[in-house]
Amino acid sequence: MPKNPIKERSAKAGLPPGTPVHIAERSEKTKIFVMDYDEKNFRELEVKTADECLPFKKDRKTATWISIYGLQDIKFLEEFGKKFGLHPLVVEDILDTGQRPKMEDYDDYLYIVLKMLIYNEKYRKVETEQMSLILGPNFVVSFQERENGIFDRIRGWIRNSKGRIRKMGADFLAYTLLDAIVDNYFLILEKLGERIEILEESLIKDPSPKTIQAIHKLKREMIVLRKSVWPLREVVNGLERESRSKSPLIRKETSIYLRDVYDHTIQVIDNVETSRDIVSGMVDIYLSSVSNRLNEVMKVLTIIGTIFIPLTFITGLYGMNFRYMPELEHPVGYFAVLGGMLILAILMLIYFRKKKWL
Amino acid sequence: MPKNPIKERSAKAGLPPGTPVHIAERSEKTKIFVMDYDEKNFRELEVKTADECLPFKKDRKTATWISIYGLQDIKFLEEFGKKFGLHPLVVEDILDTGQRPKMEDYDDYLYIVLKMLIYNEKYRKVETEQMSLILGPNFVVSFQERENGIFDRIRGWIRNSKGRIRKMGADFLAYTLLDAIVDNYFLILEKLGERIEILEESLIKDPSPKTIQAIHKLKREMIVLRKSVWPLREVVNGLERESRSKSPLIRKETSIYLRDVYDHTIQVIDNVETSRDIVSGMVDIYLSSVSNRLNEVMKVLTIIGTIFIPLTFITGLYGMNFRYMPELEHPVGYFAVLGGMLILAILMLIYFRKKKWL
Amino acid sequence: MPKNPIKERSAKAGLPPGTPVHIAERSEKTKIFVMDYDEKNFRELEVKTADECLPFKKDRKTATWISIYGLQDIKFLEEFGKKFGLHPLVVEDILDTGQRPKMEDYDDYLYIVLKMLIYNEKYRKVETEQMSLILGPNFVVSFQERENGIFDRIRGWIRNSKGRIRKMGADFLAYTLLDAIVDNYFLILEKLGERIEILEESLIKDPSPKTIQAIHKLKREMIVLRKSVWPLREVVNGLERESRSKSPLIRKETSIYLRDVYDHTIQVIDNVETSRDIVSGMVDIYLSSVSNRLNEVMKVLTIIGTIFIPLTFITGLYGMNFRYMPELEHPVGYFAVLGGMLILAILMLIYFRKKKWL
Amino acid sequence: MPKNPIKERSAKAGLPPGTPVHIAERSEKTKIFVMDYDEKNFRELEVKTADECLPFKKDRKTATWISIYGLQDIKFLEEFGKKFGLHPLVVEDILDTGQRPKMEDYDDYLYIVLKMLIYNEKYRKVETEQMSLILGPNFVVSFQERENGIFDRIRGWIRNSKGRIRKMGADFLAYTLLDAIVDNYFLILEKLGERIEILEESLIKDPSPKTIQAIHKLKREMIVLRKSVWPLREVVNGLERESRSKSPLIRKETSIYLRDVYDHTIQVIDNVETSRDIVSGMVDIYLSSVSNRLNEVMKVLTIIGTIFIPLTFITGLYGMNFRYMPELEHPVGYFAVLGGMLILAILMLIYFRKKKWL
Amino acid sequence: MPKNPIKERSAKAGLPPGTPVHIAERSEKTKIFVMDYDEKNFRELEVKTADECLPFKKDRKTATWISIYGLQDIKFLEEFGKKFGLHPLVVEDILDTGQRPKMEDYDDYLYIVLKMLIYNEKYRKVETEQMSLILGPNFVVSFQERENGIFDRIRGWIRNSKGRIRKMGADFLAYTLLDAIVDNYFLILEKLGERIEILEESLIKDPSPKTIQAIHKLKREMIVLRKSVWPLREVVNGLERESRSKSPLIRKETSIYLRDVYDHTIQVIDNVETSRDIVSGMVDIYLSSVSNRLNEVMKVLTIIGTIFIPLTFITGLYGMNFRYMPELEHPVGYFAVLGGMLILAILMLIYFRKKKWL
Repeated sequence: MPKNPIKERSAKAGLPPGTPVHIAERSEKTKIFVMDYDEKNFRELEVKTADECLPFKKDRKTATWISIYGLQDIKFLEEFGKKFGLHPLVVEDILDTGQRPKMEDYDDYLYIVLKMLIYNEKYRKVETEQMSLILGPNFVVSFQERENGIFDRIRGWIRNSKGRIRKMGADFLAYTLLDAIVDNYFLILEKLGERIEILEESLIKDPSPKTIQAIHKLKREMIVLRKSVWPLREVVNGLERESRSKSPLIRKETSIYLRDVYDHTIQVIDNVETSRDIVSGMVDIYLSSVSNRLNEVMKVLTIIGTIFIPLTFITGLYGMNFRYMPELEHPVGYFAVLGGMLILAILMLIYFRKKKWL
Repeated sequence: MPKNPIKERSAKAGLPPGTPVHIAERSEKTKIFVMDYDEKNFRELEVKTADECLPFKKDRKTATWISIYGLQDIKFLEEFGKKFGLHPLVVEDILDTGQRPKMEDYDDYLYIVLKMLIYNEKYRKVETEQMSLILGPNFVVSFQERENGIFDRIRGWIRNSKGRIRKMGADFLAYTLLDAIVDNYFLILEKLGERIEILEESLIKDPSPKTIQAIHKLKREMIVLRKSVWPLREVVNGLERESRSKSPLIRKETSIYLRDVYDHTIQVIDNVETSRDIVSGMVDIYLSSVSNRLNEVMKVLTIIGTIFIPLTFITGLYGMNFRYMPELEHPVGYFAVLGGMLILAILMLIYFRKKKWL
Repeated sequence: MPKNPIKERSAKAGLPPGTPVHIAERSEKTKIFVMDYDEKNFRELEVKTADECLPFKKDRKTATWISIYGLQDIKFLEEFGKKFGLHPLVVEDILDTGQRPKMEDYDDYLYIVLKMLIYNEKYRKVETEQMSLILGPNFVVSFQERENGIFDRIRGWIRNSKGRIRKMGADFLAYTLLDAIVDNYFLILEKLGERIEILEESLIKDPSPKTIQAIHKLKREMIVLRKSVWPLREVVNGLERESRSKSPLIRKETSIYLRDVYDHTIQVIDNVETSRDIVSGMVDIYLSSVSNRLNEVMKVLTIIGTIFIPLTFITGLYGMNFRYMPELEHPVGYFAVLGGMLILAILMLIYFRKKKWL
Repeated sequence: MPKNPIKERSAKAGLPPGTPVHIAERSEKTKIFVMDYDEKNFRELEVKTADECLPFKKDRKTATWISIYGLQDIKFLEEFGKKFGLHPLVVEDILDTGQRPKMEDYDDYLYIVLKMLIYNEKYRKVETEQMSLILGPNFVVSFQERENGIFDRIRGWIRNSKGRIRKMGADFLAYTLLDAIVDNYFLILEKLGERIEILEESLIKDPSPKTIQAIHKLKREMIVLRKSVWPLREVVNGLERESRSKSPLIRKETSIYLRDVYDHTIQVIDNVETSRDIVSGMVDIYLSSVSNRLNEVMKVLTIIGTIFIPLTFITGLYGMNFRYMPELEHPVGYFAVLGGMLILAILMLIYFRKKKWL
Repeated sequence: MPKNPIKERSAKAGLPPGTPVHIAERSEKTKIFVMDYDEKNFRELEVKTADECLPFKKDRKTATWISIYGLQDIKFLEEFGKKFGLHPLVVEDILDTGQRPKMEDYDDYLYIVLKMLIYNEKYRKVETEQMSLILGPNFVVSFQERENGIFDRIRGWIRNSKGRIRKMGADFLAYTLLDAIVDNYFLILEKLGERIEILEESLIKDPSPKTIQAIHKLKREMIVLRKSVWPLREVVNGLERESRSKSPLIRKETSIYLRDVYDHTIQVIDNVETSRDIVSGMVDIYLSSVSNRLNEVMKVLTIIGTIFIPLTFITGLYGMNFRYMPELEHPVGYFAVLGGMLILAILMLIYFRKKKWL
C-alpha cells in the first residue's frame, strides 16, 4: 500500500517538470458531470468536452460543481487545465495520485489534494484514493479516479435542496465535500476498532504467530491512515486561515464550518494515535503470553522429569546384577522400595504445590 | 470505551452538516433547572419550555444558571438554540457526545465542551460524560446527559451564599463548574493510583497472565483520561486569554481564578504522565519476573537431571547382562558403586552451590 | 510518594474555591522568625502574631525575612494573608502542599512555590517538601512545613554579614533561598548517582529479581525529582523576565544571579535526564543477563543430557533379556562396550567445544 | 558509510580554517563542461581553465550551466573561486565532501550543498555523493566528484529545447537539478521498499539470525538516507523564502516550482519515516517468531518426555531383580503391563490435545 | 564520568553565591602565556601576575591572547577577575569545572564555557575538560585546567603568520579556538565509530555478556558527548546572533566563519544521534542472538532426547523380568528389536529435517 506511490513516482523520475503523466493503475474512462444551482434553480448534466464546462467558469450567480471521474484522458485534462487557467504543475499533480494532502493558493483558485479511504471488505484492508479539488470563485471542480459513492448523499442534498447547501456558495460545497471525506474516516476508524477488539480477544484466548502478523498488518494500515490524516490538519487549517484573510474564494460565514471540520480532523488524529498506543501495548501482551506458554510447557516437563527421574534411578539401582545385594533377597524389599518411591513422589508433589507450580 | 464515540460519529456520517442528531445511549428525559441570583436575591425553579428560559437571557443584573439534563428531546434543544441565538453547529455539537474538549468564541457567547470522568465502582472502570457550557453575558447554560452529583455542592453554595460565588457574576459560575470538574479528576487519579499500587504488589508477589491484562486495561483507561485532560489545557488557556483580552464575557477578576484552574489542569496532566511512566515500567518488571520464573523452573529440572542422569547411567551399566563383568562378582562391588554414586552426587551439589543455583 | 499530593487534592475536592485547607500530615506548630537587616544594622526576633509582622511590610530601608514554619494554624495564616494583602487563592495554595512549582505575579508581590528535596537516610528515599515564598518590595516571607536545615547557612551569612547578602535587598535574599534549594538538588543527585553505581555493579555481578525492583523504585524516585525540577525552570525563567521588565520587585543587578540559578537548574535537569537514560539502559542489561543465565543453565542440562542419554540407551540395550544376544557371550564384550561409550563421550565433548559451549 | 565523512573530517582537523583540502577517495580528473543557452540560442563546449569560464559570469542575456566534475585539482578550484568571487569557506566546503545539505546566501550568489544517493547494485547498498551548486544571477556552477548520469536527461532537454527549461533562467535550471535529485530519491525508496518486502516475507517464512542482521543493515542505510533528506527540507524552504523576498537570484515565477520540490521532499521524508516505523515493527515480529520456535521445540521435547519418562519408569520397575515380585510370576503380567502403558500413553495424548499442544 | 561534576557541585553547596571555589582534582600550577600580534608585529611572553596582563587590556591596536593554565591559585584568579572587571559569578564559574557549555554577554566582554573532549587511550574512554573564554574588545583570555595540545597548532599559525589569523582581530582568534575544539570532536567521533564497528562484529560472531556491558559503557560515553555538544549549538548560535547585532565584540566578517562552525556543530550532533540510533539497534541484535543461541542449545537437547528416550523405553521393555515374555524367546527377537529401533531413529531424523531443525 504505502509502497505504490513510490513506485509510481519513480516511474516519473526523468521527465521535465510540469509534464502531466498519469500514474495509477485502477483508472476508468473519464466522465464529467455538472451540477449548477442556487437557492431556486437547479440543473444537472453530463458533458463531454472542456469547452462545455467553460460557461460555468464565467457565470457568477450560481454555484457549479464539475465532477470529473477517471484520469486516463491526459489530453482532455491538459486542455481543461488550459481553459480553466490552471498552472501546469496543478495538472501534473492532479494526475499524480501519489500526492500528500495539501492546499495551495493560486490567487484565482485554491488547489486542494485529499485522500479518501475506502475499506475493501473483500481483502479486509484500507485502500486510499486521491481526490483533487479546484475551488474557484463560484465553482468547484473535483477530480477522482473513479466513483466510490462517498459523495452520493451530497448530490442528493443538492437535488432535493436539503440542509443549507443550496443557499450557500461554492465554498460551502467545498466544505461539504471535505466534511464527507472526514466523516468517512470515522467509518474506517470503526472498522479498525473492531479489528483491534477481535485481536485483543484472540491475544488473550489463543495467541499464535498469526496474531503477531495481524498486529503488524494493522500497524501498517494505521501508518497509511496516519499519513492521510496528519497533513489534512494543515489543509483545513490553511482553508480556515484563507477564510479569515478576506479571500474572495472563501466567505467568512464558511469559516465556522471549517473550524468544525478541523475539530473532527483533530478527533480522527486523536483516535489514530490512541489506536497506535493500544496496538503497541498488544505486542507486549503477545510476547508475555508466549513467554507464559513456554513457562507452562516447561513446568509440565519439569514436574514429570523431577518426579520420575529419581524414581527411575532407584529402579535402575535394583536392576543391577551384582552378586551381593542384600536388599534384593529381603522378602519385603520390593514392597519397601515401592513404598519409598511413593513417599518420594508425594514429597515432590507437596514441594511443587508449595512452589505454586500445581 | 474509546471506541464508542467513533461508532457514534460514524452513525452520523451521511447527514448534512448542522443537522442535530443525538448520538448516545444513556440519556434521560430532558429536565431544566434555573437558578437566578445576585448577592442578595436568590430564585430556583424548574421550567419546561425554552420560552420560560428566555427572560433570564435578557435580564442584566443577576447571574443565571440554566442546567439542562438529558439530551433526547432534540426538538426542544433546536428551539432553545434558536431562541438563545446559538449557531446550528453548536446545537449539533451539544448533542454529539463524542466531542473533544474545546472552547469556541461566538462573540455573543462562549461555547465550552468538557469531559466529566465518573468512576464506575461496579465495573471498576472510568466512564466519561460530556458537558457543554454556554457562557453568555450574565448567564450560564449547562448541558449534561444526566445528573451525576458533581455539581450538587455548587448548588449548595449558591443556595446558602457560601464563599464568593453569590458576589460574582456568571463568568465566576462557569469557572466554579470548571473547577469542580478538574477537582473531580483528582478523585479519579486517586482511584487509578490505588489500582497501580495493587498491581505493583501483585507484580512482585504473584505475577500471572491476568496481571499483564490488568496493566493493559489500566493503560487503556489512562489513554481515555489523557484524551480528556490534554485538550482541557487549551480550553482553560483560551478562557484565560479571553479574560485578558477585555472580553465582555469574562471579567479581569476571574482571570486569577482561571490561572488557578490552569495550574490544577497541569497538575492532573503531570500526574497522568507520571502514572503512564510507572505503568510502562511495570511491563518490564512483569516480563523479567516471567523470565525469572522460567529460570527457576529450569534450574530445578537441570539440578535433578544433572544429578540423576549420570547415576542412572551407572545403574544401567551394572544392569547389563554380559557374561564377563568382573565388578559384579566382587563382594563389595555393590557398596563401592553406591559410595561412588554418593560422592558424585555430592560433587554435583557442590558445583551447583558454587554456581549459586542452590 | 507521587500519590500523596493526589490524595490530598482529592480530599479538598468539594470546597468552594479560595477556602484555605491545610492538606499535609507532617506539619508542626506554627513558628515565626523575623530577620531585618541592611548593610549596617541587623535585628533577629521571634514573633507570635501577624500584627507584629506588619511593621516590616511598611518599612522601606531595610530588607526583612519573615520565615514561618508549620502550616497548621489556618486562622493565623488567613489573618496574615489579609494583613499582608495576599489574594485568598495564594493563602489556599500556601496551605495546599501538593502544588506544582510555579511563580505568579500579583503586581504588589510575587508568589513562588518550590519543592525542596530531602534525602531520608533511614528509608533510603527522597522526600519532597513544599516551600512558598512571598517576595514584596522589601521583604520576603517564606512558608515551610517544618525546619529542615537547608537555610541555616543563609541565616549565618546574614548574621555574620558574609558575602554580598547584607548589601543587597529582599530580591537578592529570595535569589539566595532559591540558590540554596537548587544547590541542595545536587546533593540528591549525588545520592541517586551512588545508588545507580551500586545497582550497576550488582547488575553485572549478581542480578536478581530484587535488582529489577530496585531499578523500578529508582525510576519512580527520578520521576518525582523530575516533577520538582522541570517546572522550576519556568519559575526561574519567569523571575529573570520579571527582573528585565523593570519590575520594582526585582532589580536589574539581581538578573545576573538569576541567570546563574537558571544555569544550575538546567544542569540539574540535564543530570536527571542523563540518569533516566542510564537507568533505562539497565533494564536491557538485566533482561539480557537473565537470558544469559537461562542459557547457561540450559547448556549444562543439554551437555549432561546429550552425553548420558545415548550412553544409557546402550546400557539399556545390553540389559535386555533376549535369549539370543551374541555380544553378551563374548569374553571382551563388556570392555568393548565400555570403550565404545568412552569414545562416544569424548566425541560429544569435542563437538561441544567446537560449538563453544564448554 | 556514515563513518567515512567523520574520518574525512578528522583528517582535516588541525589546518587553519579556510584552507581548501580535498577529502574524498573516489575523485576523477577535473573536467569542465559549459552549456550556454536562451530560448533561441544554444552553445555547448568543454573548457580547461577558469579564465575560459569567466565570460559566462559577466554575460547577462543567456543562462549558463558550468558543470565541473572531479575535485582533485585544488589549485584550479582555488583559482576558479577567486575569479568568480567565491568566499574561501565556500571553496573549502566544495572540496569537503562530508558536508550536511545546506543553503547559504552570499548576496552575490547562493551556495547550495546537496547529497545525491546512488544505489550500488553490486554491493546492494546506497552510496551518497555530494553536489555543490553556485547559483549566480545568470549562471549555475555545479561541482560533482564524478559523473553519475542523474543529470543526463536535463542536458538532453536543454539541447532539444524540451519543456520550459530553455525559456527560463538560471534559477529554473537550479530548480531542475534539485528536482532531478529529489526524483532520484524515489528510486532509492523503491529499492528499499523492495528489500523491506523481501525481509518481511523471510521474517514469516524462515526467520534466521541473518534476518536480524539484514534488518540492522537496512536500519543503518535508512539512517544515512534520513541524514541526507531531512536537511534538504530546510534547503528548499530557504530557496523558497529567497524567491519570495525579492532576491535578484530567484525570480518569483520559480517560487511555485520550488514549492513543488518542497512537497516532494516532504513526501520522501514521510516515506523514510514510514519505512522506519515498519522496520522497527519487524524486530518485534522477529523476536516473537524466535520465541515461537523455541516454544515449538520445547513442546516436542515435553510431549516425548512426558509420555516416555513414566513408561520407562515402569519398565525399570519390572526390571528390578528382587527375589519376591509377585507380578513377574503372573502368566499375563507382561501383557497387563503393556496394556497399562498403552492406556497411560493415550491419556497423556488426550491431555496434550486438550492443552492444544498437538 | 557524568557523576563527577555533581559530586563537585554538591561539595560547593552551602557557600554564599559568588564565592570562588575550585572544584576539580586534576589541576596543575597556574601558568600564564601571552601572545600579542597584529599583521606585522608579534610578541610572545610568559607572565606571573595579573598586573602584567593589564596593559594588554587597554591596548587597542593589536590582538592579544592570554592563556591561563591551572586553576588552583584562587587568589590570583580573583585578583585577575577584579583587574579585568569580571563579574564575581564569572570567576566562580571559571573555577567550577562542572559547568554546562554556555555563552553570556556582559556588555564589556563575552564569557564562554566550552567542553573539550580528550580520548584517554590508556583507559579507552572519553574525558571531558572545561575551557572558559573571555572575549574582550581586543583580547581573548582562555582558562584551562592543563595543557592538552589542542591549541598548539593555532599557536603555530600565529607565530608563522599562517592563514588569515594575523590579519584578523581577537574575535577571529576566539572563533579559531572554537573551531579547533569542534574539529577535535570529529576525532572523538571517529574513535567511537571504530568501537561501534568492533562491537558490531563481536555481536554477530561471538555475543557474550561482556558485549552488552560494552554497549552500555558506549551508551554512557555517548551521553557524556551529547551533553557537551548539544549546548554548544546554542553557544555558537548566540555568538552568531551577537555578530549580527552590531556588537563591538564580534565583527560582521567573523559571522560567516561562525556559521561554518555552527554547521560543523550540527554535523557532530547529527553523528552523535546517528550513533545512538545504531547502538540502540545493537541491543536488539544482542537479545535476539542470545535467544537464537538458546534455541540452538534446546534443539540439540530435543533431538537427542526425542530420538533416545523412546529407544531407551524399548530397551527397558525387554529388560523386564517377567516370566512369560514370548518375544524374548524368539531366536531373531533381538535383531528385530535392533532393526525396529533403527527404523524409528531414521523416521525421527526425517521428521526433524522436515521441521528444518537439522
